[in-house]
Amino acid sequence: MKNKLVYKYIGKVLIGFSLLLIAPLIVSLIYKENLSTFIIPLIISLVIGILLNSIKINNKNMYAKDGFIIVAISWILISIIGSIPLMIDCKLSFSSAFFEAVSGLTTTGATIFDDVEHLSKGILFWRSFMHFIGGMGVLAFVMAIVPLSKNDKSMHVLKAEMPGPSVAKLVPSIKKTLFYLYFIYIGLTTMEFILLMIGGLNPFDSLLIAFGTAGTGGFSVLNTSLATYSVFNKWVVAIFMFLFGVNFNIYFLILMKDIKSALKSEELKAYILIFIISFIIIFLNTYNMFTNIGEAILETSFHISSIMTSTGYSIGDINFYPTSCRIIMLALMLISACAGSTCGGFKVSRLLIILKTIKRDILKVIHPNSVRTITFEGKKIEEETIKSTQTFMFLYILLIIFIMFIVSFEGIPFEQTINAVFTTFGNVGLCFNISSFANFSSVSKIVLSGGMLLGRLEIFPIIVLFSDIHK
Amino acid sequence: MKNKLVYKYIGKVLIGFSLLLIAPLIVSLIYKENLSTFIIPLIISLVIGILLNSIKINNKNMYAKDGFIIVAISWILISIIGSIPLMIDCKLSFSSAFFEAVSGLTTTGATIFDDVEHLSKGILFWRSFMHFIGGMGVLAFVMAIVPLSKNDKSMHVLKAEMPGPSVAKLVPSIKKTLFYLYFIYIGLTTMEFILLMIGGLNPFDSLLIAFGTAGTGGFSVLNTSLATYSVFNKWVVAIFMFLFGVNFNIYFLILMKDIKSALKSEELKAYILIFIISFIIIFLNTYNMFTNIGEAILETSFHISSIMTSTGYSIGDINFYPTSCRIIMLALMLISACAGSTCGGFKVSRLLIILKTIKRDILKVIHPNSVRTITFEGKKIEEETIKSTQTFMFLYILLIIFIMFIVSFEGIPFEQTINAVFTTFGNVGLCFNISSFANFSSVSKIVLSGGMLLGRLEIFPIIVLFSDIHK
Repeated sequence: MKNKLVYKYIGKVLIGFSLLLIAPLIVSLIYKENLSTFIIPLIISLVIGILLNSIKINNKNMYAKDGFIIVAISWILISIIGSIPLMIDCKLSFSSAFFEAVSGLTTTGATIFDDVEHLSKGILFWRSFMHFIGGMGVLAFVMAIVPLSKNDKSMHVLKAEMPGPSVAKLVPSIKKTLFYLYFIYIGLTTMEFILLMIGGLNPFDSLLIAFGTAGTGGFSVLNTSLATYSVFNKWVVAIFMFLFGVNFNIYFLILMKDIKSALKSEELKAYILIFIISFIIIFLNTYNMFTNIGEAILETSFHISSIMTSTGYSIGDINFYPTSCRIIMLALMLISACAGSTCGGFKVSRLLIILKTIKRDILKVIHPNSVRTITFEGKKIEEETIKSTQTFMFLYILLIIFIMFIVSFEGIPFEQTINAVFTTFGNVGLCFNISSFANFSSVSKIVLSGGMLLGRLEIFPIIVLFSDIHK
Repeated sequence: MKNKLVYKYIGKVLIGFSLLLIAPLIVSLIYKENLSTFIIPLIISLVIGILLNSIKINNKNMYAKDGFIIVAISWILISIIGSIPLMIDCKLSFSSAFFEAVSGLTTTGATIFDDVEHLSKGILFWRSFMHFIGGMGVLAFVMAIVPLSKNDKSMHVLKAEMPGPSVAKLVPSIKKTLFYLYFIYIGLTTMEFILLMIGGLNPFDSLLIAFGTAGTGGFSVLNTSLATYSVFNKWVVAIFMFLFGVNFNIYFLILMKDIKSALKSEELKAYILIFIISFIIIFLNTYNMFTNIGEAILETSFHISSIMTSTGYSIGDINFYPTSCRIIMLALMLISACAGSTCGGFKVSRLLIILKTIKRDILKVIHPNSVRTITFEGKKIEEETIKSTQTFMFLYILLIIFIMFIVSFEGIPFEQTINAVFTTFGNVGLCFNISSFANFSSVSKIVLSGGMLLGRLEIFPIIVLFSDIHK
């Protein structure tokens, strides 16, 4: 890292992150819990942040590479700092606390706790708040609260952090784009929070579940996830999970009253179509296992919504699902929802680009001299975008196989190994036959944490960082 | 199919195939078995062949598309005709017989027989002979024995049938290229045949095992595969399986005494490296389960060789393998060995091209303005080749998922579903927890047969055929 700007930028991120730690501190204060749980990481983050920020720099230029490196290092540091409260309050080992913090920040929601009902309010809040911060991106969150730099160079950072094949600025200014995005994000979260309270849930739990839905995380406050909630609240969460899987550009278009353009979105149509097809197949395969049709419809909708948006809440046992449904669920884990949402996974838009590329290339075999361009959302897709999408897919597959291989030494059965890797790499959190990751070895916890970070940051930042260190 | 030349060509292929049926007929004659088993399909193939060949054509031009269609239709027709002996002699249903014939011709070696020791000599010969024909390609085999066309248009057919990203003609003439390929193929097979006899096996079994090794098929003559063979013969088969996984170009270079070029081959080096790494990992994980080190080395070498060359012979139980070894084995099933060999799967050369592309694209992220070309085997790889390799990979993955989904309705456990699909699509035949496909439903048998054909013909011919019918 020749560019010292990188350190300075990371310093600012850590200062911003220390401010975020004030929120769980207030919760601890309200519930009269141990304050050092959050004061210690707050001070650590602030001090390191100030030190890094004081570095003198000459070169003010930032390149795409620097954006990737800033994002990768920031996420690793923040995950480490985020795990400190868990080590202090829950006496967790570093690997367990790191796994839980990464799971929170990457909005995975896979937990190492067998019992979450005995956790302190501060820790419960922190877990869900990490989902909320991580959902839109930690750096985006920080950018929204602290001034990072005056010019447009922050775009490299946003691009490196935001999910999906390309970041479309809603409006020319980054600040305004972030404003609209957060307006939508906080607006939807607030709506869900209010609806859950109307549904009879207490304000604290409503807020935490809304945080977990917004970030498509999945940490819950009860050991049975949402199984004991009212039917109304189950539907609220099912619908909001689905809504948070939609590209936020769509909501922006709706806000701008351009509903016609919003409904034209190919990705939105494909997202809805994938949901409907999955619903029909899984419903037909499982409806006779429920006591009534209403319950079957609710459970099926809820779990598809939960899996395909990479949230990971559950309202019942999914282990009875037959193999056919499991394969669909695993495929949904990897594909996930729309780009520009808070979801993990490969993203529907990438899948569409890949399918269109395949179609073009098959037609090229049949008609070798034809020239075809690929369009997506009404625009021509550049060859560069196609290439980077393809490279992303290869890396996605190779890394899954690699992580699966490492975790396989855990000695757990084959299917569980696959499930554990898919659910962490896809940032889902829910999976078959595994309720908590407590019994995994430290090595597996660290490797799976790496998988969650790779999945959340969409691989490139971490790889750029490592190839830079390697040099 | 507007081009009538396609029909005429298929007619010639069927005439050629009917001649191949004389071989098992002679075996039936020697062992005084029911001759109609092979006379009926011989006559059917010959009559249809002559009828199609009598079609008058005006246009003598052949395009790449036609090559694909000829290959696809020929393979489907030949598989159907090849299943007739199994229906007559073993009273199999069509789906079972078709599965077995496709498994033979595609050199998969997955069987629907629980007991092969009671099969007639003619049928045993036919199963292994299909491996031998299918290994180098049915159409290549036919081209070598009957004159198809005088000019170079057969190249389209060869290209469509031969495995690997591109067919390199060894010498400018197709006839001569085929001559050298068959010289190597038959030469190696004869060597193995003689060695197996020296090892104490009777001539009939030696020939069949040599056929099965040459085609990297895997049908055996005993219910325990090769488990009861002598240590010498187990080593012979292990080594020859490995040898048949090498690109035949290498043998051609050795024949031309250009050993320096042969040893330079990147694919060969990678192939050997994959073998060594797999061996080390699996050996370290399983050696303590054997009675002695020699046995552990033999079994591990044999099964890696068998799986990675997509042969599928076994000399012992592989079901005790821990999850880590299973994941390696499944990865080897999909990757397989070198292009230009008789193996199925994705091929090492494609893997290398993909990995090089990923490396280039990552470097491009770090240094956006750099221009890099990819070289393979000392030559620059054209963007078109990279693209078609990538498209092949996507199709490979998508089709595996699709077939897995269909087979999942079989209701067998998740891991077995994956195993069944990987082993058929990769043309391997051996897999964990499944010894025969007898209990699969007719639909699964047909779908898995489709998977074997797609795997063997490397997808494009079948897709071109279907998109042509669809039009």
